[in-house]
Amino acid sequence: MMAYERLRVGLAGLGTVGGGVCRLLEQNAQVLAMRSGKEIVITAVCARDRDKQRGFDLGDARWYDDPVALASADEVDVVVEVMGGSGDPAKALIEAALEHRKPVVTANKALLAVHGLSLARLEERYQTPICAEAAVAGGIPVLKALREGLAANRLDALHGILNGTCNYILTEMQETGRGFEDILREAQQLGYAEADPSFDVDGIDAAHKLALLSAMAFGTEVCFSEVYVEGIRKVSAVDIAYAAELGYRIKLLGIAKRHQDGRIEQRVHPCMVPKHAPIAKVDGVFNGVVVHGDFVDKIVMEGRGAGAGPTASAVVADLIDIARGNTSPLFGVRATLLSAFRGVPLAQRVGMYYVRLMVVDRPGVIADVSAILRDEQVSLEALLQRGRAPGEAVPVVFTTHETNEAAMQRALQSIAKLDAVLEPPQMLRIETLT
Amino acid sequence: MMAYERLRVGLAGLGTVGGGVCRLLEQNAQVLAMRSGKEIVITAVCARDRDKQRGFDLGDARWYDDPVALASADEVDVVVEVMGGSGDPAKALIEAALEHRKPVVTANKALLAVHGLSLARLEERYQTPICAEAAVAGGIPVLKALREGLAANRLDALHGILNGTCNYILTEMQETGRGFEDILREAQQLGYAEADPSFDVDGIDAAHKLALLSAMAFGTEVCFSEVYVEGIRKVSAVDIAYAAELGYRIKLLGIAKRHQDGRIEQRVHPCMVPKHAPIAKVDGVFNGVVVHGDFVDKIVMEGRGAGAGPTASAVVADLIDIARGNTSPLFGVRATLLSAFRGVPLAQRVGMYYVRLMVVDRPGVIADVSAILRDEQVSLEALLQRGRAPGEAVPVVFTTHETNEAAMQRALQSIAKLDAVLEPPQMLRIETLT
Repeated sequence: MMAYERLRVGLAGLGTVGGGVCRLLEQNAQVLAMRSGKEIVITAVCARDRDKQRGFDLGDARWYDDPVALASADEVDVVVEVMGGSGDPAKALIEAALEHRKPVVTANKALLAVHGLSLARLEERYQTPICAEAAVAGGIPVLKALREGLAANRLDALHGILNGTCNYILTEMQETGRGFEDILREAQQLGYAEADPSFDVDGIDAAHKLALLSAMAFGTEVCFSEVYVEGIRKVSAVDIAYAAELGYRIKLLGIAKRHQDGRIEQRVHPCMVPKHAPIAKVDGVFNGVVVHGDFVDKIVMEGRGAGAGPTASAVVADLIDIARGNTSPLFGVRATLLSAFRGVPLAQRVGMYYVRLMVVDRPGVIADVSAILRDEQVSLEALLQRGRAPGEAVPVVFTTHETNEAAMQRALQSIAKLDAVLEPPQMLRIETLT
Repeated sequence: MMAYERLRVGLAGLGTVGGGVCRLLEQNAQVLAMRSGKEIVITAVCARDRDKQRGFDLGDARWYDDPVALASADEVDVVVEVMGGSGDPAKALIEAALEHRKPVVTANKALLAVHGLSLARLEERYQTPICAEAAVAGGIPVLKALREGLAANRLDALHGILNGTCNYILTEMQETGRGFEDILREAQQLGYAEADPSFDVDGIDAAHKLALLSAMAFGTEVCFSEVYVEGIRKVSAVDIAYAAELGYRIKLLGIAKRHQDGRIEQRVHPCMVPKHAPIAKVDGVFNGVVVHGDFVDKIVMEGRGAGAGPTASAVVADLIDIARGNTSPLFGVRATLLSAFRGVPLAQRVGMYYVRLMVVDRPGVIADVSAILRDEQVSLEALLQRGRAPGEAVPVVFTTHETNEAAMQRALQSIAKLDAVLEPPQMLRIETLT
């Protein structure tokens, strides 16, 4: 290889992603040097356990037990944080790196969702970039698209499949007809789900990512605490079958919209989406993001959202940008220009709904349900009751025309109190994604 | 608006795209200033006809009759070339701008496909960027993805729907069962096709774009003359129907692959693609690009590939990058680092094939065809002959297992010579896109 100036990387975290970064930097060294103009080398590392067998070569990299010490090391030009965790030591490491004017690359969505604003302020104060492509949607360069590729647009809405574990589970449920618990166990065996899956299946991980995308798209202060979050545990095989019958797929979506008055709607929950919508076709462990802008119209991006390879691809793309001197502010504009976050309560959501009831099959039940909906001004689009089993439990499924969440919730509370309704109603929001 | 330094744009070309750029810069001025740190204003313009009514406001911009004069004007910091045409005056304008150290934004795929290498050398010599996001796939930030977002990868293959006119025609043929000429006429009335459609429907436009993508993905000198090009005129409604029956869609794809030995395969032609492949689902005027990298695996991007809004979105994204000082070399690496292009002849293509024959319905025809295929070592996958009309013309359709183009072409020549074969055989390449 011809002689290049070196970009010396301090790598904090030697798990799956850290290992992927090491392998990528070694395997593609030549092409990286050609593209970035620098030889990108790991000169310092830090992890919890020095003696662990990792199966990849750390070369001559100096070992640090303390991440903050790594951030200030002389032999480090740029810090890569792939430790994870929404607080210290990751936060302390990044703060120390910025104070030492060392650019930071991080894959840490949890940290940025919670402390992103204070870190963006430090980024501005120290004029030292934080790059975070790997934090959202793995190998898909979606942050670059939002902050650069689509930067000419006033963006008004985005939605995405941001968690591959959930999408894998829902896709398998769809394809096999099997239940959530069953597929989750299988996903755990295949390594697609963690032993403790709650972070993924309860929607927290997707909500972290949505909060970041929302802030970057709309130029507001990141606000994870104002993401409405609901996971996929209550999605049942029977609802997936009804969705298919009605022309929909069930997906865990992150949805962010800017209203005319500047308020931002942020939600993560299972949705019914039309089966022909681009996002409906993103299956298995893949992630997908759809962005709407005033000039570009709709852009769809799809790819692997996790795993050593795709995440390392994103981390190293950030290193190339740093080597080239081509970085953008973390949230697309300087921290001081971000507008204060003003949220839209879930109760103001307007849209269609799917509801499944388990009712005693006897005359008058539908009349009672219909009357409650009428009283809340909720208009039925379709109603299905299949089979007869007088005196026994049967499912009744209906979809509504556009209504608002508050009215729907009130109606569901009243419906749940009917004697003939045997289980809490199952409700799913229908997103038409126009 | 708070006070920003100005980035003064000289706009050459006031057609659809030029108009879109004017409108975008005006409508989104505030958000552009926040993101780019500069107020982006048009201070000079140039077009063929000064007196034409254009329906958008040029403000105080100074008029130039000569594009080269615009490039050297004092009041111009950056030149936007949206005149089109694969030679002068666009080429002379860009060269003049670079000589004056003025960054260039261009949407001109024809020019870059033919003169891209010499322009990239000027870019390097004058250390002045040429940005061309708008040249390929309209509003989809695919060049940014190749040169930056996926830059950590060794890319080995890409394919895309790169011409919205062709995709619109094929989609309509698919959905309505109507023929090419019929839909083309309709597309012309709707403004989706030009009065002279040959540039689009004969695949030239897609080939220009493919040559650019290929050079950027693989780091080779751009080589438009070594793109195999075949348009969609001979795709018939009957083939589209057979494709659907066999589980395929017919799409005009641009395909570029790097072989192990560094040679590059570049082709634009109608393909049969599995109906579940991501690219098969890109319909109507939309464009789509699928890229394979060694770490990121597969990335899919989809959006509007033409029109004033999406193209202006890409042009202005480049202006923002220039304002921020964040530009990459035109082809992803410095011109001096691009490797010489070495092509793979079409005759070496290996893959499956679809063939439709119109034959006289009499005994022995299939035996003759089969014997020819056997002699060329081409193995049949499926053969369909529907209906009987003794002594009359009937279609016979077959698909092959993997074989090479040269063998297939020899077999087709022999088949065409059979007495019972009434028309030149229709052949379509099947791309499995693994």
